[in-house]
Amino acid sequence: MGNVHFADRICSEIKKKKSHAVIGLDPIIERVPKFILEEAEQKLGKCDEGAAFALLTFNQLIIDAIESEVAIVKPQLAYYEIYGAAGIDTYWKTVDYAQKKGLLVIADAKRGDIDSTANAYARSFFGDEFNEWQTPKKVDSLTINPYLGTDSLEPFVQQAISKNTGLFILVKTSNPSSGDLQDVLTHKGSIAERVAKLVHNYALRDIGTSGYSSVGAVVGATYPAEQQIFREAMPHSLFLVPGYGTQGGKGKDITNAFNSDGFGALISASRSIIFAFEQEEASTFEQVQLSIRQAVKVMNNDINMALRSIGKLDW
Amino acid sequence: MGNVHFADRICSEIKKKKSHAVIGLDPIIERVPKFILEEAEQKLGKCDEGAAFALLTFNQLIIDAIESEVAIVKPQLAYYEIYGAAGIDTYWKTVDYAQKKGLLVIADAKRGDIDSTANAYARSFFGDEFNEWQTPKKVDSLTINPYLGTDSLEPFVQQAISKNTGLFILVKTSNPSSGDLQDVLTHKGSIAERVAKLVHNYALRDIGTSGYSSVGAVVGATYPAEQQIFREAMPHSLFLVPGYGTQGGKGKDITNAFNSDGFGALISASRSIIFAFEQEEASTFEQVQLSIRQAVKVMNNDINMALRSIGKLDW
Repeated sequence: MGNVHFADRICSEIKKKKSHAVIGLDPIIERVPKFILEEAEQKLGKCDEGAAFALLTFNQLIIDAIESEVAIVKPQLAYYEIYGAAGIDTYWKTVDYAQKKGLLVIADAKRGDIDSTANAYARSFFGDEFNEWQTPKKVDSLTINPYLGTDSLEPFVQQAISKNTGLFILVKTSNPSSGDLQDVLTHKGSIAERVAKLVHNYALRDIGTSGYSSVGAVVGATYPAEQQIFREAMPHSLFLVPGYGTQGGKGKDITNAFNSDGFGALISASRSIIFAFEQEEASTFEQVQLSIRQAVKVMNNDINMALRSIGKLDW
Repeated sequence: MGNVHFADRICSEIKKKKSHAVIGLDPIIERVPKFILEEAEQKLGKCDEGAAFALLTFNQLIIDAIESEVAIVKPQLAYYEIYGAAGIDTYWKTVDYAQKKGLLVIADAKRGDIDSTANAYARSFFGDEFNEWQTPKKVDSLTINPYLGTDSLEPFVQQAISKNTGLFILVKTSNPSSGDLQDVLTHKGSIAERVAKLVHNYALRDIGTSGYSSVGAVVGATYPAEQQIFREAMPHSLFLVPGYGTQGGKGKDITNAFNSDGFGALISASRSIIFAFEQEEASTFEQVQLSIRQAVKVMNNDINMALRSIGKLDW
């Protein structure tokens, strides 16, 4: 995977799977299927290690269920950090398991810090071939936060370019209060629009043969009207679009995030997919997998139909 | 520790130690003393586990050297995440070691996300008594990023108040590009000033007998003129002030961050302290400790002298 431009890998896998979906692996222990929790408690007890075992088993079940239907998974660090070192062990084992199945992994971490620390974060997620103490490990891309300004983003951009990994810089997030700072108007547009300009300039430094860059943006599904503006402001950036599903976004809300080539947006859903089995009272391994796979198929279809209806479907 | 208001604990410990310093535990493997690296390589080899062993040994050396001179340490997550699960294991062992020595711990993580995820992050760092799967662990306070707006901050604030822990919300950071977004002017002041107003409103919800709140702010040492403005805007908030030392700040640059009672600012230095031994070519355990302790004493003295010269020293 290391030698191909990140955006080209993404576009090629999306085409292969006919899916623009990103599945968030954000497991919550109380909602993990009971038969997994029972096994975890029996083996390791109720502790970080037991929880980490349960989350890994659940993630592997999910990945097995969806690997043929989607190209990308997005494990959110917060849900693993709860269980300390054992949780992080499960995080990296999940990354490894997904990558071995041919899935691309976005680490949703929203990191951001001054340059020396940003460098350390980038080396944490993208690996550090010059540090002989680090055991090799690497995600395919990472979400980062722009509040600290350009010198905090630059180390991530440089490492993403040199390591063929990707970045999604927060521009406009999907939550109800996202506008508190992001929508504030200045004499050069909103704060989010200013960040979009930064992203676009970074993006121009590393465009692949797909026409897309390794430097992308997070643009929430819950603000469809703004997606058009951001799409025009960052034509070469892949958009990671959270907010589909549990947060309220539907297929028709996210079509503006795509370019006319039918690419450019990765639509993310987490809870509505990985906990789909709860609504159907699935109680066996196979039933849980079936519910999850079915939810992904419905999501893929919803997005593909919406794109087809406006002539943006590429397959 | 759990029953006393965070800010009251901080102020009481600062008074006891006669020190406003926060020592950043940001270890970089290449700069760890040679005799520690040799032991780590011999025991575990050059891998995540070996690095984690070296960082923990170095941190324990530092903590032993400074425990009588300072009240607070601030391990930065990025430097531990590089080594995966083993690094996080060292992180929490460092937190535990420091707390057992009576030091308060600020987790410098700069986390921030939508509400459900912010909740998960808060439970990662402040513990979760309602989750029987989580092995208990807890830092004393946490740095967080405001870019996602109020609904992303609220879960942290609620948990900090209910768990007697503290928060430092990024307002104005110490890095050269901090102004890219933070200094942008709006019709209601700069972005940083708007965040300061949010912080002040949160702070009013939980003021201790010291007069200080569990909700504080990060305000960099490298912008002394602005400290006065922020001090007035957030009178009840403790300021975490990075940028002293390696980043260029001196004692005279940070006096504006204090209130007239001689409290309210926690002055943070990392590399200039923990790597102080490099300049003196210290090569034994005792020499390294001595250099580090001496650097802390110089820092304490620099800050205390600066405060005395303007009549703000409380001891």
